[in-house]
Amino acid sequence: MRGAVLYSPGDVRFEERDDPRIIKPTDAIIRMSATCVCGSDLWPYRGANPVGEPTPMGHEYCGIVEKVGRAVTSVKPGQFVIGSFFASDNTCPNCQAGYQSGCQHAEFVGGAQAPVLRVPLADGTLVATPDVPSDDLIPNLLALSDVMGTGWFAAEAANVRPGATVAVVGDGAVGLLGVLSARQMGAERIIAMSRHESRQKLAREFGATDIVTERGDEGVARIKDLTNGIGAHAVLECVGTQESMKQAIGSTRKGGYVSYVGVPHGVQLEGQELFFAHVHLHGGPAPVRRFLPKLIELVLNGKINPGKVFDLTLPLDQVAEGYRAMDERRAIKTLLRP
Amino acid sequence: MRGAVLYSPGDVRFEERDDPRIIKPTDAIIRMSATCVCGSDLWPYRGANPVGEPTPMGHEYCGIVEKVGRAVTSVKPGQFVIGSFFASDNTCPNCQAGYQSGCQHAEFVGGAQAPVLRVPLADGTLVATPDVPSDDLIPNLLALSDVMGTGWFAAEAANVRPGATVAVVGDGAVGLLGVLSARQMGAERIIAMSRHESRQKLAREFGATDIVTERGDEGVARIKDLTNGIGAHAVLECVGTQESMKQAIGSTRKGGYVSYVGVPHGVQLEGQELFFAHVHLHGGPAPVRRFLPKLIELVLNGKINPGKVFDLTLPLDQVAEGYRAMDERRAIKTLLRP
Repeated sequence: MRGAVLYSPGDVRFEERDDPRIIKPTDAIIRMSATCVCGSDLWPYRGANPVGEPTPMGHEYCGIVEKVGRAVTSVKPGQFVIGSFFASDNTCPNCQAGYQSGCQHAEFVGGAQAPVLRVPLADGTLVATPDVPSDDLIPNLLALSDVMGTGWFAAEAANVRPGATVAVVGDGAVGLLGVLSARQMGAERIIAMSRHESRQKLAREFGATDIVTERGDEGVARIKDLTNGIGAHAVLECVGTQESMKQAIGSTRKGGYVSYVGVPHGVQLEGQELFFAHVHLHGGPAPVRRFLPKLIELVLNGKINPGKVFDLTLPLDQVAEGYRAMDERRAIKTLLRP
Repeated sequence: MRGAVLYSPGDVRFEERDDPRIIKPTDAIIRMSATCVCGSDLWPYRGANPVGEPTPMGHEYCGIVEKVGRAVTSVKPGQFVIGSFFASDNTCPNCQAGYQSGCQHAEFVGGAQAPVLRVPLADGTLVATPDVPSDDLIPNLLALSDVMGTGWFAAEAANVRPGATVAVVGDGAVGLLGVLSARQMGAERIIAMSRHESRQKLAREFGATDIVTERGDEGVARIKDLTNGIGAHAVLECVGTQESMKQAIGSTRKGGYVSYVGVPHGVQLEGQELFFAHVHLHGGPAPVRRFLPKLIELVLNGKINPGKVFDLTLPLDQVAEGYRAMDERRAIKTLLRP
């Protein structure tokens, strides 16, 4: 088969790779219905993470089970399944506590920008839908594999409550779905920080009540203005840079909550600043598996349409253009059809 | 009157100062029943904080109201009162949210190592006991002014729940009272990290079930050993150094809680390390005022004896020896009687 491989910053190739096969009895092989490009794929694409040897790319996936290892009991060939970017056994103490992305046997699922994928720990990782969904639902369901679950975790880790005032730093797909999640959780006021018109529009569609275009100290000042000088109850940091983290902490009221769900790059938190900010801080790689059953239900019931973040759809063999469009911020998120 | 003044590291003098008087109509003047030396007083005493001009020391206090400003309505002369090191109006949104130490009008209460003290924002700051307490209760009540409220906040910020496994980093008075607080909140297992016999003994008396003497990576490994390799649900960081913070985060399970209540000195948190640790983090200057009514009740009902952390009592004029004894770790905490 052919799949996406990153050779060096800016150089994604669609090329021949070995066909995935069952390696362990707990594996499953799935045929991709759709995959996509993640904001985090842009870190190595932009050279912010080192690229060692050529790396098969992609970690968001949904599709039809083709084959399962002999130990797999919860999914079977023919089912439509969604999984997270971290395979998890879903039985260890960390999984039981709802932190499947910190599973004691977690394995990163790589190489999903391809027509076929091996998923380890299939029983603990994959969640099947009741039926094979219609094609129009695929973008919504694919989004659950990472970006929607991550936005949901951002809102949950920031303790969003009914009636809360929420601010979201970052207008990428995760930030936008953080807005949607906060709305689902009953937030009354949702301030999206964005300076891009198309993203502002989608933020409003997802439930944002206010848009702040300023960044840094000015952004913080605007949030304070909008909250009687106090700051927001909950701030979702959905970027992962020093500036965005500082902006998030500064925008939060005393005793409020800051979540962070983008892998931090160059972030250092100064102890005393954090101490006197008096905020709660929680984040990390989203335990998407925890949320999958609920989010699948919300999609199938038509309550949420997270697939709207895909504003560019390409055939899989044009994956390189999918990266470019996101890198140049021409696209929010690229969906790829095998 | 004479009170304690820090001139430079190691140089605390007991010398003539102006008598405190009502400056604002919201002030109260109290005559000290007892005061004490705080672990945080040792930072400037040891030169870890710069000492600019000679500084009146002390911020822990309880005593009898002598005089109140004309705007004060909730306490009156003759009452026995306790307050926190941060004066607060107890009405602003931050106070209402339970973060009185982040009050919009917070004022640090300094100069309490003296026979008389001016307390700003008396209505919001001071809590009176139903009657003037007997002398033997004074150490327990004095402890509520900071160290007990801070230990309590540490346990609460670490989300200690009935049945939880808790670890406490730091065997100073705050750490020891963190142990006591965790026990009050129903923790099942409380691991005190301490290598000093007298402190281990008090930790056990306060409710510690296990003692770990190792520090740093070895300390983390011991906590993991004691928790099936998973880490503790809640870890109270009661020191404020880079090493103690690292130890606390490393000892916490995925999805667990780390609190930090000692002013951080030289602490830098690396974004990615924190991200993959997957912990909740909360702390800051303890909002002691929030806990005062409950803690006073617990003391008056004989449920807690936090005054046991005072293992040295001196007349106020020997305050310099009080600092020395704590600096040399001959004393856990020094109580001073005017």
